[in-house]
Amino acid sequence: MSYETSTSPAHSTQWNLVSRPSGEPTSANVEKVTIELPALAEGEVRVANKFLSVDPYMRGRMNEGRSYVPPFPLGEAMTGAAVGHVVESRTEALAVGDTVQHQFGWRDVAQGPASAFRPAPRIPGVPLSLYLSVLGITGITAWVGLTQIAKIREGDVVFVSGAAGGVGTMVGQIARLKGASRVIGSAGSPEKVALLTEKYGFDAAFNYKDGDVIGQLEKAAPDGVDVYFDNVGGEHLEAALNSMNDGGRIAVCGAISAYNSSGEEKGVRFLGNIVTRGLTITGFTMTNYGHFAPQFAVDMTTWLTEGRIVFDETIVNGIDHAFDAFTGMMRGDNIGKMIVKV
Amino acid sequence: MSYETSTSPAHSTQWNLVSRPSGEPTSANVEKVTIELPALAEGEVRVANKFLSVDPYMRGRMNEGRSYVPPFPLGEAMTGAAVGHVVESRTEALAVGDTVQHQFGWRDVAQGPASAFRPAPRIPGVPLSLYLSVLGITGITAWVGLTQIAKIREGDVVFVSGAAGGVGTMVGQIARLKGASRVIGSAGSPEKVALLTEKYGFDAAFNYKDGDVIGQLEKAAPDGVDVYFDNVGGEHLEAALNSMNDGGRIAVCGAISAYNSSGEEKGVRFLGNIVTRGLTITGFTMTNYGHFAPQFAVDMTTWLTEGRIVFDETIVNGIDHAFDAFTGMMRGDNIGKMIVKV
Repeated sequence: MSYETSTSPAHSTQWNLVSRPSGEPTSANVEKVTIELPALAEGEVRVANKFLSVDPYMRGRMNEGRSYVPPFPLGEAMTGAAVGHVVESRTEALAVGDTVQHQFGWRDVAQGPASAFRPAPRIPGVPLSLYLSVLGITGITAWVGLTQIAKIREGDVVFVSGAAGGVGTMVGQIARLKGASRVIGSAGSPEKVALLTEKYGFDAAFNYKDGDVIGQLEKAAPDGVDVYFDNVGGEHLEAALNSMNDGGRIAVCGAISAYNSSGEEKGVRFLGNIVTRGLTITGFTMTNYGHFAPQFAVDMTTWLTEGRIVFDETIVNGIDHAFDAFTGMMRGDNIGKMIVKV
Repeated sequence: MSYETSTSPAHSTQWNLVSRPSGEPTSANVEKVTIELPALAEGEVRVANKFLSVDPYMRGRMNEGRSYVPPFPLGEAMTGAAVGHVVESRTEALAVGDTVQHQFGWRDVAQGPASAFRPAPRIPGVPLSLYLSVLGITGITAWVGLTQIAKIREGDVVFVSGAAGGVGTMVGQIARLKGASRVIGSAGSPEKVALLTEKYGFDAAFNYKDGDVIGQLEKAAPDGVDVYFDNVGGEHLEAALNSMNDGGRIAVCGAISAYNSSGEEKGVRFLGNIVTRGLTITGFTMTNYGHFAPQFAVDMTTWLTEGRIVFDETIVNGIDHAFDAFTGMMRGDNIGKMIVKV
């Protein structure tokens, strides 16, 4: 395997946020620019990115308001998870050729202090892009939500919305591996619904675009739901609240359907069940749960090497199409993790 | 002190539920009847009730639907907390003159197996009616919600809705005793608001009937809210969600304002903050937390004997007015715990 050799001056093609979207982001909100990179300072590395991640939470960062991560500054390159090879190094910590994961996505060449780049050890038979999904934030989000937030127990009935997405497919599989008695998912197309039961081992799945999410979940969960992993909010959360069993636990991981709503927010009904059924609803972002990474890595590496995890990736080729990949992911075009291959 | 002597046959005046209310309960839904009591069986006691409790949760029991406690059966006396003296006993466990607490409220004379009656030891200087409030379900609900559900920490800013009610006034005081840095309450009249800051030691209070609950809470909590004790739901929950700090905890204890709504339910907005701020919302009823009673009793008896707890009772005289006491409590006529003195 050969790696690019650094040329001087080096350039990076990157995506800047130039205005804050109102509703759905459009190409008018971003700009692709190629900049000349400064020479490396002592202690820094330069990395040729191989894969970039586009994720729902980035939509939140495009807004000005308070969120769990600060807004993307205007006029600068956006950030996000990425994995690549070191092509130049002015630190003992990392050598040219090392594989690293980091947060300088949305560009083809990244550079910065060595401390911002973590080694991404190659696992035989496992593609490097999995550091952006199964082995990365997607996998650990599913794992933390189920084990630490929803405190999954053997025999639980588990429901996950957005089930065909990167996190959703992991939630379904981890739930099964942790002893769930029944795993139910919702998705937005007949193809995705079929994939859930045929490939990902879900016991039941339904298409929320067919309407009556409440009724569809009732039918899919005749014995109620013990754990709901919420990727969606809105009507899905109402359906879950309606079907939850006593002592049920809801882990709220995102609310894609609300991110784009700039108008009047629609409220969520059935919150009275929180009291009558003794439910717990907990929101979480990985910001506060990074310390579970080692414990997660043990579980996931074991499952991957035992062949007990399947996954899908939707790969969009070229840094030029990174924004298309993002908007496509927000529309739900992807199956499994949406990845940009540089 | 003298106790009534049992006459045979004994009678009990009791309140039966005869139809299920739609919306606000009216006198057409209940019937006051006087029945002849059967002679005591072996192992039973007869108790002359002295004080009866009327509580918001009883409204839920008047409905047919699933709730955290089964519905009141139609055509039978309703139940609820009560305290009284044993007037006749066919068990070694309890003697005539013993003071007991139990669940056969809504009547002036109760009888049943000794196991259904728990001793209510007299504490010098503490009125017997406090077993229905500070020392009873009201006090332990506040204590459990703050210490076990919301996991209050020293320095927390605590907000409680329905603050002038039985549970609310306890929440404010226990929050302070557990080290809250700021205690905020909402209530439904200027008199109640004044009582909160002047008598119960709240740092700030506002009248939710003045409108703009969201804005009023923002003003009362310039540094945000860490713990919200929710007695109300609806717009108060929205206001809390809007003002919660990162890692905030919401204990949901009831939703009085929703109990009477038989029409289309209004949804709650701002649930997106559950994720962005990493909030936890937990519903609870005392059904699952009774095992904390001994721990609670130590705290509360200590505070009472040290004079660190103040309380209000609104006492309605006579079994004949028990239903008026209940509807008045639901309307918010009471200050502190609503009690029926038999």
